[in-house]
Amino acid sequence: MQNARIKKLIHWSKKPGTQKKDGICIVEGEREIMRAILSGWLIRDLFLCEESDLVSKLQEYSPILCSKDVFSRLVVRQGTIMSLAVFERPIQDLSNLDLPKNPLLLILDGLEKPGNVGALLRTANSVGVDAVIFSSLKCDPLGTNSIRNSIGGIFNTQWAQSNSSNVQKLLVDLEITPYLMHLSGAKSPFEMDFIGPSAIILGSEDKGLGPSWEKIKSHKLKIPMNGIVDSLNVSVAGAIILYEVLRQRSI
Amino acid sequence: MQNARIKKLIHWSKKPGTQKKDGICIVEGEREIMRAILSGWLIRDLFLCEESDLVSKLQEYSPILCSKDVFSRLVVRQGTIMSLAVFERPIQDLSNLDLPKNPLLLILDGLEKPGNVGALLRTANSVGVDAVIFSSLKCDPLGTNSIRNSIGGIFNTQWAQSNSSNVQKLLVDLEITPYLMHLSGAKSPFEMDFIGPSAIILGSEDKGLGPSWEKIKSHKLKIPMNGIVDSLNVSVAGAIILYEVLRQRSI
Repeated sequence: MQNARIKKLIHWSKKPGTQKKDGICIVEGEREIMRAILSGWLIRDLFLCEESDLVSKLQEYSPILCSKDVFSRLVVRQGTIMSLAVFERPIQDLSNLDLPKNPLLLILDGLEKPGNVGALLRTANSVGVDAVIFSSLKCDPLGTNSIRNSIGGIFNTQWAQSNSSNVQKLLVDLEITPYLMHLSGAKSPFEMDFIGPSAIILGSEDKGLGPSWEKIKSHKLKIPMNGIVDSLNVSVAGAIILYEVLRQRSI
Repeated sequence: MQNARIKKLIHWSKKPGTQKKDGICIVEGEREIMRAILSGWLIRDLFLCEESDLVSKLQEYSPILCSKDVFSRLVVRQGTIMSLAVFERPIQDLSNLDLPKNPLLLILDGLEKPGNVGALLRTANSVGVDAVIFSSLKCDPLGTNSIRNSIGGIFNTQWAQSNSSNVQKLLVDLEITPYLMHLSGAKSPFEMDFIGPSAIILGSEDKGLGPSWEKIKSHKLKIPMNGIVDSLNVSVAGAIILYEVLRQRSI
């Protein structure tokens, strides 16, 4: 536990804010690490339990081999995980996006919970959206919790990070129709047409989308609710809309 | 903290298994407690922070008034919560169900995580399913986490608790078509017809539905997945299917 690389790792885990500042992210799990490498992410450091399958595969990164006991103190996710890698944090802004002619975007604006961001990345990957845009997020989409909840979806989905104002400009410039999930939404997603270039835009868990979104022309959606429950979890609401888009586009 | 009622409450919180044994459940939050009372749940004990709005409303239950400091040690959910009630645990078996002619049921079979059960109750209430059936669950659907995640949905949704075998018999007897979420599912929910009496059946997070479900005639569903992610969260999958049923039935 006195090894300098281990000490540095523990510092990053204990103070997650330093991960962004130091330009790194932490990925746990063999499958996830292999997917990150395949997606072109660059390894800065590697920690393996002595019994990990990656010991022979990833010698080139000079991994630190740890006993089970030491390793369990390094990972957030307990259980069967036997590998952890520190990656260089990729920087992706809107100019990096490579979009098809009729794109489907998922825009997460101001979300506060990394668990929800990760869950939405998982669903977005499953639906096959063309890009997820993190817009003025209040949490780190490349934090350990978000990456873990995405179960690898983040490595296989195009994404970019920006702010609400730049994202709104992009949508206007590229003539992509914004569909806002909104408490004052008048239409159900089931009566909307998502066949053209579409961006599904979800706001923060507590407050929804801010007033800046009123400035651009958009459709406001509200999922029908028939009970006493007055809201759906944002990752559930996003999944319902994204799969409705997929349904319409598959017909 | 030495009060006998407080000591009993702490015992139930620390050993959640004793809640079922002692026939009680714990509900936190003013809105949730009022909803439980309106749904006919019976209060056994009541703990209020001195500043709670319920102090004047619920005097008949002889609440214990606590300082903010003491109260924060009683609740699981930290933050703005100022009330906690111990309710008599309702017993609902399949014979209690009152179903319409063309019912929509959600059956949760063998689920392990109370957070998922609660999230599905929230969505089920929002969709307006006629009943949720807890079938051979591996967790307590009336535990604090499940009730909290349902954000009150459990008090406004008909439910019953039983085991897989009895639930299967009920479906056959009432001629309700079972739609199983299944890894070997051949059809997407979007090409299925849910217009008649329908039961959506979700299995455990890790293992899905057990072999006993093979014995009855059913449709097997699989949600289309286009990415590298090989599964969806069970509460997300349930929401996608339930809202597809609602969409079809609203046309």
